[in-house]
Amino acid sequence: MSYIDDHVLTYVDKKMNYIEPQLVAIRELGLKEKVPIITNDAAAFLRTQIILKRPTRILEVGTAIGFSGSLMLLNCGAHLTTIEISEKSYEVARNHFKSLNLTDRVQQYLGDASEVMSTLVEQGQTFDFIFIDAAKGQYLDYFHKAERLVASGGMILTDNVLFKGITAGLPFARRQKTIYTRLNAFVDYTSNHKGFYSSLMTVGDGIMLSIRKD
Amino acid sequence: MSYIDDHVLTYVDKKMNYIEPQLVAIRELGLKEKVPIITNDAAAFLRTQIILKRPTRILEVGTAIGFSGSLMLLNCGAHLTTIEISEKSYEVARNHFKSLNLTDRVQQYLGDASEVMSTLVEQGQTFDFIFIDAAKGQYLDYFHKAERLVASGGMILTDNVLFKGITAGLPFARRQKTIYTRLNAFVDYTSNHKGFYSSLMTVGDGIMLSIRKD
Repeated sequence: MSYIDDHVLTYVDKKMNYIEPQLVAIRELGLKEKVPIITNDAAAFLRTQIILKRPTRILEVGTAIGFSGSLMLLNCGAHLTTIEISEKSYEVARNHFKSLNLTDRVQQYLGDASEVMSTLVEQGQTFDFIFIDAAKGQYLDYFHKAERLVASGGMILTDNVLFKGITAGLPFARRQKTIYTRLNAFVDYTSNHKGFYSSLMTVGDGIMLSIRKD
Repeated sequence: MSYIDDHVLTYVDKKMNYIEPQLVAIRELGLKEKVPIITNDAAAFLRTQIILKRPTRILEVGTAIGFSGSLMLLNCGAHLTTIEISEKSYEVARNHFKSLNLTDRVQQYLGDASEVMSTLVEQGQTFDFIFIDAAKGQYLDYFHKAERLVASGGMILTDNVLFKGITAGLPFARRQKTIYTRLNAFVDYTSNHKGFYSSLMTVGDGIMLSIRKD
């Protein structure tokens, strides 16, 4: 289910099906194991933003099996700090980074993203590109921490903020009420934030792009 | 009509309703006179890309009444070259640029975009940001010329490429057949172009973002 017409979704997905040859096997594994992998149009968009920004330090909230992290590293010279709560995904990602010879450019954390981000704040670390793709119910908390970690002029890209249109009012199941409420709070907070330029995009499952003002 | 669910479209439009205070009157005039103005989500996206890219020389294909041109100039220090075929729009835009004190930063051309672009090519001019928002049937021709005008690492942003979903196969009237065919040729050409990173986005009425490889 998507908030975009099926014809258009299929068309865009097909036209944006290019991925780096080194990443084909990772995507196939993701599809086979039903690990959520960023959609084709979101991947293509993420690539352009990395190329435009040319970051030196990237923070990723939600490693999964390392697909989007590798995609970012293959398109710039940055160092990646990435956080994952599932030990299984953490290990799979570690093997992927190794097989792509990216290990020297990656610092992997296994743990709760909010706690790890607090540690990074305490350490005074900063990043010029932050990609958030983790537990949607925690996005506002992650963003509050990301605000303290993002360098001046840096950007925060948050994926899945429209949640199949539920955020915007499409029908949802009772158990999804909390996520609906929290994603709305996230969109309201980030859209109205005076410290960021923001762009809410109907790409993938909804991307919020936030650029810190100088 | 849009290829995006109405709830989501309304939601995104509302959340992205910020515009620079100086541009409010221009947008109101556009709405009143039914001059097509870039949608809120596309405007918000365009702003972020200008801020990321910080271009020095922008080319705009399709001035209309100067809304998007002014939006770009208010968010960077660039010089704008902009082309418009309608004398009425050209004059209205001229007054808008003047009232915003942007005249010194704008070179307006009145004429056929394809011809003016050919002249710019002959003059050896280059631009680091090209925004195409004009006659959809001519997009492939404009892009061919834009390829010769865009600097290394520069970007081309083309608006309205999904044409309410018609490009992707949604039903269309017989008179729209030519545009359907031509927009498909445009999307195929740009998506597969080895010289550009491309991202086809379901933002606004469909945006193709193309970044020239170095």
